[in-house]
Amino acid sequence: MSAWLLPDHIADVLPSEARHIEELRRELLDTARAYGYELVIPPLIEHLESLLTGAGEALNLQTFKLVDQLSGRSLGVRADTTPQVARIDAHLLGRQAITRLCYCGPVLHTRPERPHATREPMQFGAEIYGHAGREADLEILSLALDCLDSAQVADLSVDLADARLVRALLAGVIADPQVLAAVHDALAAKDASEIASLSAGFPAASREGLLALVTLYGGVEVLDEAENALQAFPGVRDVLSNLRWLASRLDDVKVSFDLSDARGYGYYTGVRFAVYARRAGDALLRGGRYDGVGAVFGHKLDRERPAVGFSLDVKQLVRAASERPLRAAIRAPWSDAPDLHAVVRSLRQRGETVVCVLPGHDNEIDEFNCDRELIQTAGQWLIQPIGDS
Amino acid sequence: MSAWLLPDHIADVLPSEARHIEELRRELLDTARAYGYELVIPPLIEHLESLLTGAGEALNLQTFKLVDQLSGRSLGVRADTTPQVARIDAHLLGRQAITRLCYCGPVLHTRPERPHATREPMQFGAEIYGHAGREADLEILSLALDCLDSAQVADLSVDLADARLVRALLAGVIADPQVLAAVHDALAAKDASEIASLSAGFPAASREGLLALVTLYGGVEVLDEAENALQAFPGVRDVLSNLRWLASRLDDVKVSFDLSDARGYGYYTGVRFAVYARRAGDALLRGGRYDGVGAVFGHKLDRERPAVGFSLDVKQLVRAASERPLRAAIRAPWSDAPDLHAVVRSLRQRGETVVCVLPGHDNEIDEFNCDRELIQTAGQWLIQPIGDS
Repeated sequence: MSAWLLPDHIADVLPSEARHIEELRRELLDTARAYGYELVIPPLIEHLESLLTGAGEALNLQTFKLVDQLSGRSLGVRADTTPQVARIDAHLLGRQAITRLCYCGPVLHTRPERPHATREPMQFGAEIYGHAGREADLEILSLALDCLDSAQVADLSVDLADARLVRALLAGVIADPQVLAAVHDALAAKDASEIASLSAGFPAASREGLLALVTLYGGVEVLDEAENALQAFPGVRDVLSNLRWLASRLDDVKVSFDLSDARGYGYYTGVRFAVYARRAGDALLRGGRYDGVGAVFGHKLDRERPAVGFSLDVKQLVRAASERPLRAAIRAPWSDAPDLHAVVRSLRQRGETVVCVLPGHDNEIDEFNCDRELIQTAGQWLIQPIGDS
Repeated sequence: MSAWLLPDHIADVLPSEARHIEELRRELLDTARAYGYELVIPPLIEHLESLLTGAGEALNLQTFKLVDQLSGRSLGVRADTTPQVARIDAHLLGRQAITRLCYCGPVLHTRPERPHATREPMQFGAEIYGHAGREADLEILSLALDCLDSAQVADLSVDLADARLVRALLAGVIADPQVLAAVHDALAAKDASEIASLSAGFPAASREGLLALVTLYGGVEVLDEAENALQAFPGVRDVLSNLRWLASRLDDVKVSFDLSDARGYGYYTGVRFAVYARRAGDALLRGGRYDGVGAVFGHKLDRERPAVGFSLDVKQLVRAASERPLRAAIRAPWSDAPDLHAVVRSLRQRGETVVCVLPGHDNEIDEFNCDRELIQTAGQWLIQPIGDS
């Protein structure tokens, strides 16, 4: 075993990509801040039961476990930041007012989420707590799209769905939890024959509704079809009109609907969305409403706060974002001369990169792209294009 | 057990501190970039033997272990980033030229390093590979001081030492490794009676040298005393003259010497430094030369590269840095009006924070400090100071 081999789906990020990731990170956080979202930094590790309380089995399987030598208890490395941010809203801040929070940091997964995915995504996300209305849904969705705009991702399209649709269709169904989980999987895979077989014993309306749902994806006409096919289910009309309202307010972006989409850790309670870019195969960003996710962390029962948010992986985003040129640098000779030090310092303070050539390395190729150099002419330090001296 | 309790020495970073940490993080990375240091992002987890190869037992004890479900092998969560960066220089980049690298990210410790320390520092550091000369030592030290300047830490002082001094004194000593480790501990604690007892069987010159070393801390006069007391040991004169040269080139900062300082993971091979601020008890930043640290990662034997660098904990730094005011924000009403949306968007693009008041929450206190609001007057959206309408 060579000491330099890394575990599968774990990688170093080398300079040119690391620089781009850092630029994206700043733009994402600045965009969220411009909307009034406050940055929080939850810890990488927590007691396992805190990380997993209220979360599903999927998150448990994705979470690395370790032992706390100070307490002997089981800790987990976070696989998702949302439960932590919900804890911060519910317990630490404990505000009654609307709270807007954002975060950006690594999470670890025991297994890659997709065949070529990293096990160490850099998760960026934003969440709004305390508002149950569609205006908060729209704000989050607008922020999500502005974030991808700031990253210069071209050809965005948004898929909208709502967790309440499947819930409404299954409301009258009494079935084994495993069967219900299989129904969700079959919906996500749009596998009509599997749904027909799983729902054989369901009430006829539910079975027909589920089978209809599988075909309900596409443009805004899908909402009309859904209104016809699912009119028997209470609440469905409101959900669909909410989706119509949201879609009508998203400018400059293609909107589709995928009403059977049922992915995620199972904490969604309302609208759900995914944003795709033409250059990326999987969704770049996912989000939605998950009211009450922080309830288990509150002091009081009334901390079941409405919540809506999204997250993305900056390491995935960088592959879809436009490349950016490296700013060219200035080469300076090594010298003890105070006047050179003063010139170099002032250039650096103005945002220039000034690379000093250390003694004995004068003829090396720069790793930075130096297009200018500092040269002493008649007692003055001047910047010259390289090659023109 | 309440779900919101965090493990000991693990904490959430809440908005006002998180904002300050993010600002410091950017200034540190920008300062390093202005010197030509390229950012790398090594992974949080690696095979345990990669993380610990060449490192001492102290790093092993500080490293959280977990199991890779994909391979069944033991992984470690990094407790220090330097061995990873050495691996990147030696194996991935493999350049012959000078390589300047920097990084910033979390590390985890099984136990706090000091009584009130976090177990999740945010480690920032910069390193230069491929130059064995004092000019590289000076560049790293200057960058370190500029980094602390950018963080607006007041009243800095630098402690200089050199790992070769103790090594020279112990060169002729044949003793048990545990005794030698105890000697290093006693030197760090300046415990003369312990050193006298441990070194009872050492050659007289070594014993006297070690006892002299304990008293060799203070201003530049310490170097003269050391030259007298340790003149019998080869190489000591060069080491001391190197320290004198370095100190003479550090302007605007108090320099002291602590020649018996022997802390660290044992990978230092030359100059060592620590930077203190008056407001902080422990060193804010530590660094030095650790030639050959990456040798185990190279393809070839000739990858034993000279290296010098430093690191600091941004979470510790934020407590010593001057506080910064939160930029005031602008409050906007919620509205469907496209002209309001256009005004809000352009303010946000200019770097302003614009917080929308969502329907039903008009009378809430802002968590952001809103000192202005958008008000429609005669069909125009205008910014007004709050309270003046």
